[in-house]
Amino acid sequence: MKFELTAQDSRSAARAGVLTTDHGAIETPIFMPVGTIGTVKTLSPHDLRENGVQIILGNTYHLYLKPGLDILRQAGGLHRFNSWNGPILTDSGGFQVYSLDELRKIYSRGVEFRSHWDGSKHFFTPEKVVDIQRVIGSDIMMVLDQCIANPSDFETAQAANELTIAWAQRSRERFLQTNPLYGFQQFQFGIVQGGIYPEIRRESVQALFNIGFEGYAIGGLAVGEGQEERNRITSFCTELLPEDRPRYLMGVGTPLDILDGIERGVDMFDCVMPPRNARNGTVFTSRGKLVIRNSLYKEDFRPLEEGCTCYACQNFSRAYIRHLFNVNEVLGLRLATLHNVHFYLKLVRQARQAILAGRYLDWKNNFVSHYLQKEENE
Amino acid sequence: MKFELTAQDSRSAARAGVLTTDHGAIETPIFMPVGTIGTVKTLSPHDLRENGVQIILGNTYHLYLKPGLDILRQAGGLHRFNSWNGPILTDSGGFQVYSLDELRKIYSRGVEFRSHWDGSKHFFTPEKVVDIQRVIGSDIMMVLDQCIANPSDFETAQAANELTIAWAQRSRERFLQTNPLYGFQQFQFGIVQGGIYPEIRRESVQALFNIGFEGYAIGGLAVGEGQEERNRITSFCTELLPEDRPRYLMGVGTPLDILDGIERGVDMFDCVMPPRNARNGTVFTSRGKLVIRNSLYKEDFRPLEEGCTCYACQNFSRAYIRHLFNVNEVLGLRLATLHNVHFYLKLVRQARQAILAGRYLDWKNNFVSHYLQKEENE
Repeated sequence: MKFELTAQDSRSAARAGVLTTDHGAIETPIFMPVGTIGTVKTLSPHDLRENGVQIILGNTYHLYLKPGLDILRQAGGLHRFNSWNGPILTDSGGFQVYSLDELRKIYSRGVEFRSHWDGSKHFFTPEKVVDIQRVIGSDIMMVLDQCIANPSDFETAQAANELTIAWAQRSRERFLQTNPLYGFQQFQFGIVQGGIYPEIRRESVQALFNIGFEGYAIGGLAVGEGQEERNRITSFCTELLPEDRPRYLMGVGTPLDILDGIERGVDMFDCVMPPRNARNGTVFTSRGKLVIRNSLYKEDFRPLEEGCTCYACQNFSRAYIRHLFNVNEVLGLRLATLHNVHFYLKLVRQARQAILAGRYLDWKNNFVSHYLQKEENE
Repeated sequence: MKFELTAQDSRSAARAGVLTTDHGAIETPIFMPVGTIGTVKTLSPHDLRENGVQIILGNTYHLYLKPGLDILRQAGGLHRFNSWNGPILTDSGGFQVYSLDELRKIYSRGVEFRSHWDGSKHFFTPEKVVDIQRVIGSDIMMVLDQCIANPSDFETAQAANELTIAWAQRSRERFLQTNPLYGFQQFQFGIVQGGIYPEIRRESVQALFNIGFEGYAIGGLAVGEGQEERNRITSFCTELLPEDRPRYLMGVGTPLDILDGIERGVDMFDCVMPPRNARNGTVFTSRGKLVIRNSLYKEDFRPLEEGCTCYACQNFSRAYIRHLFNVNEVLGLRLATLHNVHFYLKLVRQARQAILAGRYLDWKNNFVSHYLQKEENE
């Protein structure tokens, strides 16, 4: 995988780069909307392109269960199946399985879990997760890891990390022994674990670096720790990670979390927030979140955000979108999702421009102070 | 209102025309998708335009309740509110109130009903319904009428028709005494009632013609009578209606019902079928309906319809759309709705071309024989 650093901020670890896959180049820092079961909720590939999306995420756990590997293989992989012809990253299922809680058991060989659809029993090994992602045909695949909640005690974090490293080794071996199925290259990222403990994080980074991956993710954050702790661990990891490989902070986060991550040298982010908040009738603006369902907006004929160039803001008022939510019309959900995705992509695009212009921190501070002046509080 | 007849079929009553409103011209025969509460379910105005929609329908009953007249007035009417800048026709609420069944009482002065949202009591008079449609700002408004089920006995049909005529007279008076609110013209259509009784239908047509409207609708069909009876009554009405005014067959219907209506000289149709069938996972093709939810399609990588130029067919397989329904992803509903709306608009466009080419009946017979060769039955 080609990853070129274009610019490095002089006053922070923020950096801009270009990551090239066979499905196109990605300008980093980048946000990746989550397309859980093969689709970013309510949006078409056309909507994604129009709103600046460069790469989407798919969930291995979900895709494995439905539509399942037979159909994905016959379709010629996920790109052909869902008609998104840009880059796709798939997670390993580790986090999803971790979220199943009562429904999973972890062994050194792998993890047993029950489907949330029908309770059927399944077993993922590190090798199988590579094989599944070969069938999905993602441009970037993640290794199976063991997630733990934050805070966990030191022993739990250490044991989980040892397992994660052993699995990373097996994942890489399987990756190197197998080939892509659909005629384009695939890459594999390792996942740094270690909870909130710097010494375990250090071991994790070192071990993964020795195995060698095309990129490195920071996992086990955004799972209960506070913002300061997350920032501290993120900085700690990015300082140790190789400069010439992309860094991905998994599951992060709010707009401000993302800016914190960029400042600390992270290149890639994913989060379910843009569609999930839209589902709850909440939209992002440069002056904070608006709960558009709120009756406050029922006679507000301004767009969700003044000056926003998304289709929702160019064509509809808050009053109309609030009305759509009020009468349970799906178009409301779609317009709010579209706006939120647009907002997140504009955020990282502006961050990138600020890095290129050598003024990331100034831009960030300005953004943050606007963002915290919530319009609703005035 | 300007309505020009462009062509008249020599072997049937089918005709092609152009109906001009201040929001644009409509080529007839035309199908109008139903945008109940200010939106055609799941679709944006952009989607509607892209798929050949020329005019949409709004429901006075629904819009009156939500968002309500205050908001519509402040927005500057429905066009500004929902961002559809083409022509809009609104029904009078008569049919919706008729559907409320237990929740409404009919008086000679008007109709009392309870909101399906909160049970609150409301009263519509013919005059009030004109006033409401002034606030909505539809290009074409309908008069309040009394709908009855088919079959109803002669006396019921006659009484309903007498009331409908009296209301039509009052509606027209109110229409002539009031002005549009938003700087563009509005037109008013009368509604022919009379159930399945030709003699009452004749009275109805005569009375409405004497009052004088910009167009005439045939109401009280698609409410329980069979296809033959509907065709018989439709023919009977269109033979009596003035040639130089548009004719609108309310609530009709399936693709074949629409072709029957066109053959009998109808110019305009509306029906909830395209989005409603999509909601049930059913799509229309030139070879009949497909229940795309069906597991029959789970490994079918053809488009919904070969050769269809809609976004859904150009980009996705039956297997993918079936998958979306299977995992309850809203995009499935949206793609199926988009395809169905595209299908209905292509249907009337092709019918129009056949009329212009002087071969409507040949085209229709050919279409019908294909349509009845259901792919699923092979």
